Amino acid sequence: MINTKVIANIIGFLLILEGIFMTMCIPFSIYYGDNDIIVLVSVGMATSIVGSFLFFFTKEKDPEIRRREGYIVVGLGWMILSLFGALPFVIHGAIPNYTDAFFETISGFTTTGASILNNIEEIPHGLLLWRSATQWLGGMGIIVLSLAIMPILGIGGMQLFVAEVPGPTKDKIHPRVRETAKRLWGIYVILTGIEALLLMLGGMSLFDAVNHSLTTMATGGFSTKQASIAAYDSPFIHYVIIFFMFLAGVNFSLHYYGLHGKFQVFGQNDEFKFYVKILLAFSIIITASLYILDIYGIEESFRNSLFQVVSIVTTTGYVTADYEIWGQFFKILFFMLLFIGGCAGSTAGGIKIVRHQLLIRNSFSELKRLVHPRAVIRVRFNNNAVSQDIISNVLAFFLFYIGIVLVGTLVMSLFGLDFESAFGSVATSLGNVGPAISSVGPTQNFAHIPDLGKWVLSFLMLMGRLELFTILLIFSPAFWKN
Amino acid sequence: MINTKVIANIIGFLLILEGIFMTMCIPFSIYYGDNDIIVLVSVGMATSIVGSFLFFFTKEKDPEIRRREGYIVVGLGWMILSLFGALPFVIHGAIPNYTDAFFETISGFTTTGASILNNIEEIPHGLLLWRSATQWLGGMGIIVLSLAIMPILGIGGMQLFVAEVPGPTKDKIHPRVRETAKRLWGIYVILTGIEALLLMLGGMSLFDAVNHSLTTMATGGFSTKQASIAAYDSPFIHYVIIFFMFLAGVNFSLHYYGLHGKFQVFGQNDEFKFYVKILLAFSIIITASLYILDIYGIEESFRNSLFQVVSIVTTTGYVTADYEIWGQFFKILFFMLLFIGGCAGSTAGGIKIVRHQLLIRNSFSELKRLVHPRAVIRVRFNNNAVSQDIISNVLAFFLFYIGIVLVGTLVMSLFGLDFESAFGSVATSLGNVGPAISSVGPTQNFAHIPDLGKWVLSFLMLMGRLELFTILLIFSPAFWKN
Repeated sequence: MINTKVIANIIGFLLILEGIFMTMCIPFSIYYGDNDIIVLVSVGMATSIVGSFLFFFTKEKDPEIRRREGYIVVGLGWMILSLFGALPFVIHGAIPNYTDAFFETISGFTTTGASILNNIEEIPHGLLLWRSATQWLGGMGIIVLSLAIMPILGIGGMQLFVAEVPGPTKDKIHPRVRETAKRLWGIYVILTGIEALLLMLGGMSLFDAVNHSLTTMATGGFSTKQASIAAYDSPFIHYVIIFFMFLAGVNFSLHYYGLHGKFQVFGQNDEFKFYVKILLAFSIIITASLYILDIYGIEESFRNSLFQVVSIVTTTGYVTADYEIWGQFFKILFFMLLFIGGCAGSTAGGIKIVRHQLLIRNSFSELKRLVHPRAVIRVRFNNNAVSQDIISNVLAFFLFYIGIVLVGTLVMSLFGLDFESAFGSVATSLGNVGPAISSVGPTQNFAHIPDLGKWVLSFLMLMGRLELFTILLIFSPAFWKN
Repeated sequence: MINTKVIANIIGFLLILEGIFMTMCIPFSIYYGDNDIIVLVSVGMATSIVGSFLFFFTKEKDPEIRRREGYIVVGLGWMILSLFGALPFVIHGAIPNYTDAFFETISGFTTTGASILNNIEEIPHGLLLWRSATQWLGGMGIIVLSLAIMPILGIGGMQLFVAEVPGPTKDKIHPRVRETAKRLWGIYVILTGIEALLLMLGGMSLFDAVNHSLTTMATGGFSTKQASIAAYDSPFIHYVIIFFMFLAGVNFSLHYYGLHGKFQVFGQNDEFKFYVKILLAFSIIITASLYILDIYGIEESFRNSLFQVVSIVTTTGYVTADYEIWGQFFKILFFMLLFIGGCAGSTAGGIKIVRHQLLIRNSFSELKRLVHPRAVIRVRFNNNAVSQDIISNVLAFFLFYIGIVLVGTLVMSLFGLDFESAFGSVATSLGNVGPAISSVGPTQNFAHIPDLGKWVLSFLMLMGRLELFTILLIFSPAFWKN
């Protein structure tokens, strides 16, 4: 039996919070005299009221949350927050079509950053802040999800990190979530604040600085400019954003230890080291290519390479330059980078560094096994031998990921998208990146995709954000059997 | 210490055989009065003489062939046969450029079927027959390789089939290879003969019938017509070729049992059943789509769907219709089919059905494991539990495959190929299929690719044909350590 009461209770709680945050988005609208104040306040209050009803009518003493309830809350939570979160855009009229508004909102909550907006500069400030806030809240959600909830649910190699997360590691979801939230959200808030200050120092307005810091830390990538970060002609701003995208793509439990002075954890963490190597390797290759091809000078080659690589690998999706016009090689390379993803336990989406690392290590171990058939050769990670169970789990994740990309690409081709756009839109949605290639390239957006296609991509964003298994399980018959 | 003598000895033996087969390609040239007789006879004899020197000067009593020698012979064998096999084309002048001739020949020996020829009908009959013969010989080679040698070397899940192959299963390569060859080549020859007779019955000339049956059974796909099988306007011929492509894509040890009256082996073999299901499923989807879109009538929709699906999945590469002009959906679908491959132990290349099946089963088992974390859930195949070692091996194969496709695509983009052509040419070469999409689509060829790109693709064909690990091992330092 599934405890629907506890599910409704948690969803109610989340809606109350969503309503409060929505309402809190009005200060800039007041300052700039925008016409979205009433919408935000009324929809925000309505959302909180709906949430309160759900919350108070389902209150239980010492509620029992088991694995199954966990999966359903997580899957439904993101969906329902997006359904409500889209309302201000539609009711105000800034995004008249509900499908578009939902796409934009779930792209926010999943920290994807794919947008249907053609006129970002014309959207009132309150709505833009709410749009950025969806990403920031989604980022908060995913930190708790990946560091506190998923290890318990046993999803996709996440159990590897249980030992590293500070706090109780027992099987109870409730206290664990509370502890993790308390410890890690502090870091999240502090980093967001510091970035905003630095961006203002670089010449951004308070409004733009706040928005961009909210969406950087979430590795979201929504910008208040149609041209994204390319709108700012300041190397300082570019480097600040690169640095914070980089931080946002790191496992937040490392930041926790780092803040407590234990800097050695970074050097001991295999995933972090590989993350740095990947970013550097691709940035260097691209810098050299751009410089040799005489597309930019040396500093600009380096900055544009590093920015775009960090932006895509951390699944942020900001843009300072259009890699598609650099040439076919770059286009294909960036398409491939869509499949990497940041570190597990960060706000980044995608397949994630650790999974690639385990799969690569297992593959090379296999070569050694062929040469020495009688030797027992185990994959090691952070100085521990990795069990075949985890390899098998990561493998399953990887294959479902590829399978979903292939089916998704076929489906998108039915809506008239060409090969590259179909493939790219699916890869970027499932990977929670934002831009892709061709008609959904870095200087394009998703407005031209038919409504049904937008729902398909929305679903893919949700799947990717919830590490596939959450959604796959909810759709699998075995899950519903008692 | 590597026993170089035994390696040279076997290569010498292969060259003697190659020379004999080359010389034997002249009957049609005599009949048609072509000018390639002297070339074939002289190059054939020269090849046999070089082979004889190698063979007789390295003769040992009771030679020792260990795993390492096995890998090197296999890797070098295909390479050296192609280096010599290309000579008649160059010396005659039908293919003046050695790179082109080598590409065409290794495309033959690897049973790929990718061609650089723009003027097939103008090539003399003897050379065309030699071109087809390279595929047929390559097919013979791969049957022994996959059913007798690779299971001993432990490559990519092949050990799964050891039990099914008739003959001695002991660790000695020599008697095993001889036994397997004797038992399975008989079937290969008989099926080739029957197909040739049926094709003549359908109205093909003796020459065309022989050539097409040689390249069908090898799942090679070289045709004596520039338009491939589309040159024949006979549904009977199309269905005959579909049937024999289908047979060629099946594990030959099943045919062995079938010929001995044990037809139940087909029904008991999980891979065979999945192979049939895949072919039917895709054919039905495409038939229905073509019919609904009013591209063909019902019979033609069915025939063209079945033909193209069987041709691509078995990695043959014959063409009766251009799936690219059917629409984006079909183009993407056929691109994906490039990654399937036939059954292990057949002449087909690619990833192979059994590997997909094991990976898919493991992925769905993982979902069950998430629902029932304490249950022990094992992947089963042909009614046996599959060990995690084999899953891990298959996984490694799959990941190396994907990795090589990605790196290959990037490399090909450096030669100026667009996204689809680069991706397609690499996928079709590594999968030993033949045609792909875009500028290397079903009605195009590989002539326009720069020389260096042709060498890259040649290398990929070899890698794919030798199940990756053979080549990867030779390039890995661990292999050369004592």
